[in-house]
Amino acid sequence: MRMYDIIARKRDGCELSTEEIKYFIEGYTKGMIPDYQASALLMAVYLRGMNERETADLTIAMADSGKRVDTGKIKGKTVDKHSTGGVGDTTTLVLIPLVASAGVPVVKMSGRGLGYTGGTIDKLESIPGFKTNFTTDGFIKNVNKINACIMAQSPDIAPADGKLYALRDVTATVESIPLIASSIMSKKIASGADSILLDVKVGSGAFMKDLKEAEKLANCMVKIGNNLGRKTVAFITDMNQPLGLSIGNSLEVREAIMTLKGEGSSRLKEACIAFGSCMLMMAEIVSNEAEARAIIENNLRNKKGLNKLKEIIMAQKGNPEVVENPDLLPISRQIVEYKSDRTGYINDINAEDIGKAALYLGAGREKKEDKIDPTVGIVLNKRLNDRVIQGETIAYIYVNNGRGLKEAVELLNTAIVIDETCPKVIPPLIYKIIA
Amino acid sequence: MRMYDIIARKRDGCELSTEEIKYFIEGYTKGMIPDYQASALLMAVYLRGMNERETADLTIAMADSGKRVDTGKIKGKTVDKHSTGGVGDTTTLVLIPLVASAGVPVVKMSGRGLGYTGGTIDKLESIPGFKTNFTTDGFIKNVNKINACIMAQSPDIAPADGKLYALRDVTATVESIPLIASSIMSKKIASGADSILLDVKVGSGAFMKDLKEAEKLANCMVKIGNNLGRKTVAFITDMNQPLGLSIGNSLEVREAIMTLKGEGSSRLKEACIAFGSCMLMMAEIVSNEAEARAIIENNLRNKKGLNKLKEIIMAQKGNPEVVENPDLLPISRQIVEYKSDRTGYINDINAEDIGKAALYLGAGREKKEDKIDPTVGIVLNKRLNDRVIQGETIAYIYVNNGRGLKEAVELLNTAIVIDETCPKVIPPLIYKIIA
Repeated sequence: MRMYDIIARKRDGCELSTEEIKYFIEGYTKGMIPDYQASALLMAVYLRGMNERETADLTIAMADSGKRVDTGKIKGKTVDKHSTGGVGDTTTLVLIPLVASAGVPVVKMSGRGLGYTGGTIDKLESIPGFKTNFTTDGFIKNVNKINACIMAQSPDIAPADGKLYALRDVTATVESIPLIASSIMSKKIASGADSILLDVKVGSGAFMKDLKEAEKLANCMVKIGNNLGRKTVAFITDMNQPLGLSIGNSLEVREAIMTLKGEGSSRLKEACIAFGSCMLMMAEIVSNEAEARAIIENNLRNKKGLNKLKEIIMAQKGNPEVVENPDLLPISRQIVEYKSDRTGYINDINAEDIGKAALYLGAGREKKEDKIDPTVGIVLNKRLNDRVIQGETIAYIYVNNGRGLKEAVELLNTAIVIDETCPKVIPPLIYKIIA
Repeated sequence: MRMYDIIARKRDGCELSTEEIKYFIEGYTKGMIPDYQASALLMAVYLRGMNERETADLTIAMADSGKRVDTGKIKGKTVDKHSTGGVGDTTTLVLIPLVASAGVPVVKMSGRGLGYTGGTIDKLESIPGFKTNFTTDGFIKNVNKINACIMAQSPDIAPADGKLYALRDVTATVESIPLIASSIMSKKIASGADSILLDVKVGSGAFMKDLKEAEKLANCMVKIGNNLGRKTVAFITDMNQPLGLSIGNSLEVREAIMTLKGEGSSRLKEACIAFGSCMLMMAEIVSNEAEARAIIENNLRNKKGLNKLKEIIMAQKGNPEVVENPDLLPISRQIVEYKSDRTGYINDINAEDIGKAALYLGAGREKKEDKIDPTVGIVLNKRLNDRVIQGETIAYIYVNNGRGLKEAVELLNTAIVIDETCPKVIPPLIYKIIA
């Protein structure tokens, strides 16, 4: 088998065999196949596509390029959750404690974020002392003790994906459905959960701008998961406006705590209840959705979720007092009020621009090497359709030494549209559920 | 400007600007743009194509990536010739002396061959003592003295092309018309001839198997040349059977000498007369084709062409006695007669298989690093439609120590088809002339 022939076959629109895909991934992981051949193949895949079988084979080959976590030692049916990434998407921080508090073991390996704001790991690391590095054994021990552990993805989970993603990132081959689907699913398969909930975001602040494309991606991933014996459900959710009110790492932890206390954004809460109910059903600890929903809503009300977050923070060496007193979370040196220059209704809060504003402030990474500032970001004081009076505060900008403030303000100026006339219909939170 | 955006734009089927193409070629030549980004772009170009304007810009950018030869110091209008490569294509060795003997300065820079047999430089180097390395000044001096010089292409002629070709060769992006056309034409433009004759081969033994594709390539190159102020004509010629009777380096030199003596293959002679006449017309030393043809045919008959070859060999430090006595050319240790196992008519001599047989014997290179054996190859004793009697010799196999003999014989067995029934119509030598 020669890499040249594999490239030529995909270039000509042929279906690659299981062996060819395995040969490529194994060779590339070991450094036997050079980057320049891999990138030619990636471009051919981008333009010619891959069918279901090829995408599944690519997923398996990448999952097998490193270690697979053996979740067999965990009692109960394990669940995992993945979001394709959005602005103000604080779901995981609320969802994991809620689901774990209902008795379902949650195994969550997360990457660091590349994008407008940090990933789950970055957010959690803003809690003083919080540790996310575990051995697989330590990870499993933790799950067995308190039903949840959130671990930074170790480099031996699907290493082929990490290497390929870095290459795709610089060769304009990221936005390909089979490549995105296999990248996400290879890590989920390798990290071993029995069930996987996927949150595919669509809209201005998401990777996928188009509902049809989002559906294709969701379908593709659900098929891969189910065919590989993992119960997989995908939600397609809206990302035209930020999900929560907070955008930024420690700010999102604070909002997660507030949400588990019954406060915070109703839209974020709605997402957490929908996802949480689904995860209880996937774990088969309830017999129907109403029952699942009742448990989740109850554990929000009775603070079981909040207490579980405290347990998780303690187990991961963070300061658990942040739960009672969120002011212990690190915060930026300046808070700038962003006020309305007119009276009217909020007609748009463009998620992409809000995300970019947070990135300028230092909340995200443009390149892998960039360091995140955990304390900066934006907290919205208004939502879509809210009435606003001239001089009223629409958002708070958390900033250090003025870094990125000018750019952030300019972005907010275009992102937030205020109009005197009637408010628009708000896009639904959940467009579709694919199982 | 970012290479990422250039890749993304071509990936999406957009037209690249002159500046983008220049940025890519300059950056890649200087090593500022890595191979993996270049190969992603090459695959996007392969699959999305390039229009005329882009292809011309790519040609210019590659021609400008190194030195351009200033042929202004040469008296008269200079001509150059390029073949896309075929089996038994000894044309250049006959054509250059013929055209030069008619008073037209021929500036010929040649690469070493990658393919079934060596390139013009490899063939000439089989003449004892023959040198092909010149400075540009030495090259021009030689042309001014005897109207011809054949020089190995120096690495500072279109270096971007050399680097890109090596990358295309391992990333399955060779067979793309804009990439082939710009590769050929960039070297022709940089080496400075006023007129360029292109021989685009089509058929089993050529790179282009399909007449339509060959026409596209020819049209593309002719347009580039003419738009850049070089008179350019392309012949589309047949490569379903070997052009000459000899396939192999010193064997082809011998056939060239025989042809200039009035012997040898009629088909090869026909090609040389057609190309030679065209080159005289391009150099504007005749007023019509009949006149041009008369001069070329005359210089074949009166041995002016043969004498010019002798002059060229002398000027390039080779042993000129090979012209009178071709037995001074190096020859393989064994000559094996390949005999017919039946009586009938030659219905096919598949050029590709004959070429491969020569490659197995050592006449060509599979990889750039391979060393050529100048003495081995095949000499056909029969042509298409010839009658052959059982036991009669169809071909002579020139071989050293049995290297590749088994494979060569097997290839000849499939390449040469003998049938009792009527002979086929022979494909014409020249399919089309594009000016």
